[in-house]
Amino acid sequence: MAELSRRRLLGAGAAAVGGAAAGWGAGLLTGGVRADAAPVAVVPFHGPHQAGVATPPPAHTTFVGLDLRPGVDRDAVVRLLRVWTDDAARLTAGRAALADTEPDLATVPAALTVTVGFGPGVFAATGRGDRRPPWLAPLPPFGVDRLESRWSDGDLLLQVGADDPVTVAHSLRVLLKGARSAATVRWTQRGFRRARGSEPDGTTMRNLMGQVDGTVNPRAGTADFDALVWIADGSWLAGGTSVVIRRTRLDLDGWDELDRPGREIVMGRRLSDGAPLTGDAEHDEPDFAARGVGGLTVIAPNSHIALARSADPGQRFHRRSFNYDEAPSGEEVSDSGLIFVSYQADPVAQFVPVQQRLSDADLFNTWSTPIGSAVFAIPPGAREGEYLGQALLAA
Amino acid sequence: MAELSRRRLLGAGAAAVGGAAAGWGAGLLTGGVRADAAPVAVVPFHGPHQAGVATPPPAHTTFVGLDLRPGVDRDAVVRLLRVWTDDAARLTAGRAALADTEPDLATVPAALTVTVGFGPGVFAATGRGDRRPPWLAPLPPFGVDRLESRWSDGDLLLQVGADDPVTVAHSLRVLLKGARSAATVRWTQRGFRRARGSEPDGTTMRNLMGQVDGTVNPRAGTADFDALVWIADGSWLAGGTSVVIRRTRLDLDGWDELDRPGREIVMGRRLSDGAPLTGDAEHDEPDFAARGVGGLTVIAPNSHIALARSADPGQRFHRRSFNYDEAPSGEEVSDSGLIFVSYQADPVAQFVPVQQRLSDADLFNTWSTPIGSAVFAIPPGAREGEYLGQALLAA
Ligand code: HEM
Ligand code: HEM
Repeated sequence: MAELSRRRLLGAGAAAVGGAAAGWGAGLLTGGVRADAAPVAVVPFHGPHQAGVATPPPAHTTFVGLDLRPGVDRDAVVRLLRVWTDDAARLTAGRAALADTEPDLATVPAALTVTVGFGPGVFAATGRGDRRPPWLAPLPPFGVDRLESRWSDGDLLLQVGADDPVTVAHSLRVLLKGARSAATVRWTQRGFRRARGSEPDGTTMRNLMGQVDGTVNPRAGTADFDALVWIADGSWLAGGTSVVIRRTRLDLDGWDELDRPGREIVMGRRLSDGAPLTGDAEHDEPDFAARGVGGLTVIAPNSHIALARSADPGQRFHRRSFNYDEAPSGEEVSDSGLIFVSYQADPVAQFVPVQQRLSDADLFNTWSTPIGSAVFAIPPGAREGEYLGQALLAA
Repeated sequence: MAELSRRRLLGAGAAAVGGAAAGWGAGLLTGGVRADAAPVAVVPFHGPHQAGVATPPPAHTTFVGLDLRPGVDRDAVVRLLRVWTDDAARLTAGRAALADTEPDLATVPAALTVTVGFGPGVFAATGRGDRRPPWLAPLPPFGVDRLESRWSDGDLLLQVGADDPVTVAHSLRVLLKGARSAATVRWTQRGFRRARGSEPDGTTMRNLMGQVDGTVNPRAGTADFDALVWIADGSWLAGGTSVVIRRTRLDLDGWDELDRPGREIVMGRRLSDGAPLTGDAEHDEPDFAARGVGGLTVIAPNSHIALARSADPGQRFHRRSFNYDEAPSGEEVSDSGLIFVSYQADPVAQFVPVQQRLSDADLFNTWSTPIGSAVFAIPPGAREGEYLGQALLAA
């Protein structure tokens, strides 16, 4: 059924692309938690929003931060964005890019999405400083931060996700080759989740600590999601959003020393199924007031979920994180963590207060350390014939 | 059909393990090129051979070379191998390992295989120098080599493969934690192919140059394969094999400058479908004598396939390679290559002469550079109740 319709789409090839595009606003992007629709093998590129934000997260996503080369001006940035837009439109449809020197690797789109973001540097280089959104700057420093510049900031973001690692590798190479004259790679972060088909579509992922991660999240396709995520201020960014990427090292060795009940107190949720400590099932509403033996609240007030939850419904965002697991060094047996990723219309209003509360008191801080941080503006999607960022950069 | 039977096995859970094990000698390991049987989600761990050699290659495989800590003796190595054997038997069946601190991550075996290898150091540390196979040593130096010690050698090999990257990450961590008191990580190489389901089972993989890679390969389950791969000398290694792991950097930027006909001459095969330049389809027999315009052979005598093919049928081995793609640095846009992996009963007799010929004259050397090299003895599989390497190490 879900599997079948995906295979049909795959088999139908180019014809499927148009068909999928027609349904884009409706069912195909209804992803996230407990979605009924399966992710499709071809995710349409064109539309009012860039793909890769509301799209159900694929098995693999690589985030690349780039620095513009000195002297790169508006014309050069426009050239780059035209190339990226054309490459992305082709590759996501399972076709080779124009200057694709390995066209034989372009045949399996595997739900490929390519998402482009702008750091502060783009506005400076293109003489558009007056149109830079006020929130587009490094986040304020938090007490928990141990940020390394090799995982932070950047002028441009390329986010390339697919269910197939060869598709990601090939697409990234095509896109980075297209950027060569204008930009250099500043950092690369490779994230993953379960392979497609390993678990039923819509299963909330587990991170490498084994926690069910992503339960409480605005659901793509709802008015709530749209209001929280998409910018609707009539500016060039309308239909766009912002992304916060926080590389967070997880101390798995330390976590190992904590028993299961201890781990559950830290999070406020059960490990087995992600249910709140006051509930029976993953999506039960936590009862932060419920008290247990000794009169203490069952969910600790400084647990991760108690502090991450805001009384202010505007202090919410769309989380879409990925695991990372790099080669260990020295005495380590793993170098693992979470590429925490959130999308929101305004990171300063929505994200910062939550991160501040977590930084101040989250029990989980003992085992999680932000080592990278970056914020990008995600321009709206491109319509056929447009290039990404055109509303900002057109003369 | 194939997909369906895989899902049934998955759904059947623990019961499937026994069932699959019963069929192990028969259909389930018939993988490789154009196999009819689909890879299964549970690959049995116990048996005469270790899994991960004849098993169809999964989407992800990580190879880890370890160094024994100073002072580690036979008892300590046996303890480690007992733990690894038990962990591997459980994890490959979709069950948590005994000391598994993230048991919730162990539920998706995704065709997990764990393969253990011994470097020369194991024999020295355990007082078994007299039983070290004569071929177990670094390969002779080749002219093409630019070997780096950070990708070479090691006392122990852990090869962990699965169709799901979370399964690989979790299993690796469990196994490396079990090794902590006896060994440290020397190198980690993460390889990948297409995701399961991206292409029909049995499709020959393409490497990151877009070449169909793995066409001419002994086929698992045949007498030819068995004779080439499995050791049958009555020694402790009977039922085992050897592995050669050559990390080979591919110069994709240089390759880009070559046109398609040029690339096809270098390999002797067509890019579109992997057919030999003298044939029509991937599995057509190349005609190395056929001549074209100007009287030259159609397949160049110094093409990769002409030099890799031996007149001596004993100079063959089972290739089971994986792509790698690491974060680029500096001006690079990619750091890509092939983790070339081959299994053979005797690497000196079977592999070295071929590598020597390629090193001396292969046209492809301009774009491919071995930067790592390691050889390990792969002990036979363990039967229920045995540990890997028992025939070597039992008192
Ligand atoms: C990087 C390490 C982190 C890990 C491993 C982690 C893990 C989790 C887990 C397991 C949950 C419970 C299930 C769920 O609703 O998803 C959760 C909830 C949540 N986390 Fe995190 N988290 C991390 C960092 C952050 C950060 C940096 C923020 C934002 C500043 C954040 C915001 C939230 C929010 C808003 C929730 C939902 C709270 C609610 O129930 O309303 N998390 N996180
Ligand atoms: C690491 C970079 C290498 C790449 C990208 C590569 C690629 C290829 C390709 C595309 C083929 C043709 C299709 C096939 O039969 O698989 C091939 C064939 C072959 N390669 Fe390689 N190869 C590499 C290294 C090696 C090495 C180091 C050896 C052994 C020393 C080797 C041995 C062979 C053999 C035996 C064949 C089959 C030849 C025949 O047709 O009989 N290759 N290789």
